[in-house]
Amino acid sequence: MTARIQKTFEALFQLEELRGLFRASLPTGFDAGEEEEFRKRIAELKQIVADLEAGTGNPRVTKIAGTLDIRCREEEYINIHPIQAAGRLTTEARKAIIAYGDGYSTCDACRKPFRLDKISKPGIADFHADLAKFVNMDHARVVPGARRGFQAVTGTLVGRGDSVIVSALAHYTEFLAVENAGGVVKEVPLNDKNIVTADATAQKIEAVKAETGKLPVLVMIDHFDYQFANEHEIAGIGKVAHQYDIPFLYNGAYTVGVMPVDGKKIGADFVVGSGHKSMASVAPSGVLAMTDEYAPEALRTTAMVGDLTKRKFGIKEVELLGCTLMGGTLLSMMASFPAVKARTLAWGDEVRRSNFFIDRLLKISGSKVLSEYPRKHTLTKVDTTGSFDTVAKTHKRKGFYFSDELSSRGIVGEFAGATRTWKLNTYGLNERQIQYLADVFTEIAEKYQIPVMR
Amino acid sequence: MTARIQKTFEALFQLEELRGLFRASLPTGFDAGEEEEFRKRIAELKQIVADLEAGTGNPRVTKIAGTLDIRCREEEYINIHPIQAAGRLTTEARKAIIAYGDGYSTCDACRKPFRLDKISKPGIADFHADLAKFVNMDHARVVPGARRGFQAVTGTLVGRGDSVIVSALAHYTEFLAVENAGGVVKEVPLNDKNIVTADATAQKIEAVKAETGKLPVLVMIDHFDYQFANEHEIAGIGKVAHQYDIPFLYNGAYTVGVMPVDGKKIGADFVVGSGHKSMASVAPSGVLAMTDEYAPEALRTTAMVGDLTKRKFGIKEVELLGCTLMGGTLLSMMASFPAVKARTLAWGDEVRRSNFFIDRLLKISGSKVLSEYPRKHTLTKVDTTGSFDTVAKTHKRKGFYFSDELSSRGIVGEFAGATRTWKLNTYGLNERQIQYLADVFTEIAEKYQIPVMR
Repeated sequence: MTARIQKTFEALFQLEELRGLFRASLPTGFDAGEEEEFRKRIAELKQIVADLEAGTGNPRVTKIAGTLDIRCREEEYINIHPIQAAGRLTTEARKAIIAYGDGYSTCDACRKPFRLDKISKPGIADFHADLAKFVNMDHARVVPGARRGFQAVTGTLVGRGDSVIVSALAHYTEFLAVENAGGVVKEVPLNDKNIVTADATAQKIEAVKAETGKLPVLVMIDHFDYQFANEHEIAGIGKVAHQYDIPFLYNGAYTVGVMPVDGKKIGADFVVGSGHKSMASVAPSGVLAMTDEYAPEALRTTAMVGDLTKRKFGIKEVELLGCTLMGGTLLSMMASFPAVKARTLAWGDEVRRSNFFIDRLLKISGSKVLSEYPRKHTLTKVDTTGSFDTVAKTHKRKGFYFSDELSSRGIVGEFAGATRTWKLNTYGLNERQIQYLADVFTEIAEKYQIPVMR
Repeated sequence: MTARIQKTFEALFQLEELRGLFRASLPTGFDAGEEEEFRKRIAELKQIVADLEAGTGNPRVTKIAGTLDIRCREEEYINIHPIQAAGRLTTEARKAIIAYGDGYSTCDACRKPFRLDKISKPGIADFHADLAKFVNMDHARVVPGARRGFQAVTGTLVGRGDSVIVSALAHYTEFLAVENAGGVVKEVPLNDKNIVTADATAQKIEAVKAETGKLPVLVMIDHFDYQFANEHEIAGIGKVAHQYDIPFLYNGAYTVGVMPVDGKKIGADFVVGSGHKSMASVAPSGVLAMTDEYAPEALRTTAMVGDLTKRKFGIKEVELLGCTLMGGTLLSMMASFPAVKARTLAWGDEVRRSNFFIDRLLKISGSKVLSEYPRKHTLTKVDTTGSFDTVAKTHKRKGFYFSDELSSRGIVGEFAGATRTWKLNTYGLNERQIQYLADVFTEIAEKYQIPVMR
């Protein structure tokens, strides 16, 4: 870690120690001993800030809680990790979790009817309304990850033995959500370009009907899949689902929060997004949005009555198990939200930079892109068997030579040791960073005499 | 907010702005423009630190992301909120979320077999083993809140129409977890001291058997309930459950993380705890632990196979939907864990301080404690109808006068406006703070001529 980054963390940690003093003191202020401790900490803080400014000083803190390394991948490196890119917190989200990290921090002003999405201070109720609007649906709830959104829907709609249409590139959490509800996944095949089409979806629905005698109870398709991040025929699929009167869940884990998503226009009955994947939020977090039509079912409130006490908890929603994100997770979503809304409008620039990098990679002889090309997304599966892997074959570090070369130039997030097929995500990199990234790949190729087209 | 606390947050926020600079820069360092921005921010930071030291200066920042207030309840006040006390982050946890707040921050070194509890860097695998040991069970998993632990168990064991034994003081999330699985709650009555006894549990099991012709499929009881925080006959109840060969879930939402819990000794098949309620962690977080006997069922891995692709995601656990807490939530649990382990050993001191405060409250004429007394917990339900409510009857601010008096003395967390029956939690207050708290109550009573015994 550079001294400056090290000292930035040390200054943050020293301030958290100061907060600890306030927390252990009386509301009336410090006593003499606390004041002395405060002065000592301030003096240390000043030294840390001086070192931070000058870029000097040895590390004073290297572990958190005695065992955890300080994670500085985002400060020290350019991180191209396939699933981390769009979940990085915004600066405002980082501030929010400083202020709202404590357990039930959302609950200071929880009043009747005692439900998370009704809290007005902080503005959680408004945020829910904004979220619904953001994806153009009627209702939105926050959930502990997209998977918990899938689960709420499968729990509502899928019975034992029921079929659910998913894509041949469906994420494993969709499999599990269906399995957990007792259903069975039925995969729509890809076309020769690795795209799920509306026609193939219709054919699969017909095939399931012929095979089982029953229509599938849900169609759940990823707009962009997790393998290639190819764009699938989501609006057409929504139309097909509705022709069969089957509810359609739009999986926006790779879209909600990075590009504009209009649920109604797509024809979605449910829109699911991921906070930690695409909304710059602390994990686990996500959004489950739906139409008026499905809210009474999927957001049904409890009907359970205590047999003895006759207690009822009428407003609590069964599939959500009541409140969902009661603290820092939600506040990080809320604090990132203005930036997240704004950044979806700049999606075109993100895609352009993604293509800029991929074009440069393709100039390195033997490199291929396995995702659809030109790219419509920032996540891409590449094949460097014909380029960087040719070096790995004879290098004593095997594929790790490539990781070494990348990390020594400040790039991390590739799958360490992988030089054949692997994934990367350029989301959030600015113009200079994407240029630098492309230059690094060229430089490594040239170092190992892999031909690079100019 | 006092100037010092305000400036502490401002310094933290300014450092987060600096981090933002590092994140947007190249790994090779700042360019001239960035360096200038850095210098400017450092100069501001120095001024903030100078103000922090002197306790001077006007607020420069009052909102996060334009709308969120800075939450300073824990620094500025003594917070006696019933559910917040033991979920406050430790200083190490606050450091951890600074370093690991970003989305999928746990996943830097995720390798085969690609499951959260197998990750060794950071030491998530070891943490899981430690967690199981901590509650003396064979297996532990982290979950997004205790409620998601209940859900995993009811999802495994409860079928449509099955009965589940709960307490007449069961938390609503237990109701929902049973309802979500299609089951029906059957409440064990309380004795005249508001305690759930082993005998009453046995009788209820018999009654359910007589009524439905089937034994209940699960007994799920809170060690300390959320209403009175009375201690229920948990070991005896475990024994009864086993006599009927019914699995027993120990709800430790109010115990795991604050007092020693020995699952095997209690006879628990499942132990569930809450991270944000009792383990000083970011919400939503919690633990689900179990015996070897139930692990194959409750932690069953997916059996779903893609009908077309034949894909299998074999190691992913169905009830957990794969990975659960992929970032700051988990890291806050891990960073707090050494302190949490240590603090459970000091539970006797916490209970002593709880009783100290309650004894002082009871000296205020007309005050009652509705929880069992002497207290065995730090959460207590009190009845001040005969004391503080007598003032509310004629005060123009009604019950809010009491909140005003408390907050003007630096106490928050009571239910605003409530002066009859309400709950408070003294967990985590040190000797000076508990003394101060008791003095404040006495002072308010005296101000309003409520007799106080000396």
